[in-house]
Amino acid sequence: MNYERGDMLYEGKAKTVYQVKGQKDIVWLEFRDSLTAFNAQKKGEFKDKGHINREIATLIFRFLVTKGIQNHWIANVGETAMIADSVEIIPIEVVVRNRMAGSLAKRFGRNEGEKLAHPVVEFYFKKDELNDPFMNEDHALALGLANGMEEVAYIKRTALRVNDLLIPMFAEMDLELIDFKVEFGRGSDGRVLLADEITPDSCRLWDMSTGEKMDKDRFRRDLGKVDEVYKEVLQRMRAKLEGVQ
Amino acid sequence: MNYERGDMLYEGKAKTVYQVKGQKDIVWLEFRDSLTAFNAQKKGEFKDKGHINREIATLIFRFLVTKGIQNHWIANVGETAMIADSVEIIPIEVVVRNRMAGSLAKRFGRNEGEKLAHPVVEFYFKKDELNDPFMNEDHALALGLANGMEEVAYIKRTALRVNDLLIPMFAEMDLELIDFKVEFGRGSDGRVLLADEITPDSCRLWDMSTGEKMDKDRFRRDLGKVDEVYKEVLQRMRAKLEGVQ
Repeated sequence: MNYERGDMLYEGKAKTVYQVKGQKDIVWLEFRDSLTAFNAQKKGEFKDKGHINREIATLIFRFLVTKGIQNHWIANVGETAMIADSVEIIPIEVVVRNRMAGSLAKRFGRNEGEKLAHPVVEFYFKKDELNDPFMNEDHALALGLANGMEEVAYIKRTALRVNDLLIPMFAEMDLELIDFKVEFGRGSDGRVLLADEITPDSCRLWDMSTGEKMDKDRFRRDLGKVDEVYKEVLQRMRAKLEGVQ
Repeated sequence: MNYERGDMLYEGKAKTVYQVKGQKDIVWLEFRDSLTAFNAQKKGEFKDKGHINREIATLIFRFLVTKGIQNHWIANVGETAMIADSVEIIPIEVVVRNRMAGSLAKRFGRNEGEKLAHPVVEFYFKKDELNDPFMNEDHALALGLANGMEEVAYIKRTALRVNDLLIPMFAEMDLELIDFKVEFGRGSDGRVLLADEITPDSCRLWDMSTGEKMDKDRFRRDLGKVDEVYKEVLQRMRAKLEGVQ
């Protein structure tokens, strides 16, 4: 099928959303080379990042759909874009954590890397002006962010299933999934779909042999070799996930 | 029964805990006249506050026990102390909210006073050095703060029941219960008991006719008449709760 890019709808921190000409229920997601951290207070970019992340996100979405996780991916176009279901994003950033890291370690005065007895799911209110405040399920309901308890429970359950599926997938590539952030959206038919992206921008991945960070923390913390590790993650994924391509 | 105060065990922000001579399973809680806010960065006091809060806490504990809420209150001694079960405090501050106020309103950019569609329960990790960070139920479990999911569920359910009981109790006194904080402890027999205190230090109470704040916000926000409103709350409670004294 041929898709033609239409008007811009929304510019996010690392992706731009466009209409698709003549189509109402799908959008064109352009993965840019930009990289931001700390609610866009820190900005950067590297060549091919848009392409690499489009590829990684695609491999993950295609892997997850074979495991029954419905998501917004439809097709890829060009080097840096994908066609996806047009969804109304549910303004809840869902974080799943397997080890203490980043803001969680700081908040509770624990050491980065400490293993959690079981995965922790966190909800953040997706609202840049408020700096995406951490909240709980009661807040999500009281603020009217989700359609009732069932949608909240579905989102939480699905995020945990994605975790259960991605941990062994990454482990085969010698990568440990420390934590990740996902977003969900409501399609035009009302279905709740996994949306946005899962890439080294939104995950923490540690090399299981060397402990090296293979994700955006290299940019956040000025560790260097940002582009190399993104490429390396993609290469390992391609080697292992060829079957689902 | 006669109780004799023993050695000091712990000095809190508004209460001091002492041993009871010759007894192991009970403690002596001394309600002091001090008043603190913002994690004790702001300090104050007023005469008779210890007595007033001891009286208010007692009336609430005695009311709640008639409704089946097990708590640590045993008896009063002198003007400012109570004898209570010696409990191991569970380091979770449980907040129940019926309207937006204080930190919640700020965090979500909402107006103070906005009615919540249903009560919101929040957990905070009781740890002064970390400034009592907000957390969710998964954190409480992963940090080992509670004995499993059942204890977490019991604490949350009991806090909501206390809310359901206190809303109409205060409404009879023309006071609206906006929010409150409770703590729980494990007794020597392993039972989980409502502990600490429920007083205008740990509740928000608004006069239903005038909207006037009848709680520690008067101190936090320098609204004046702090001692008057604490006294007024006690007087209204005495008038209505005589039957349970």
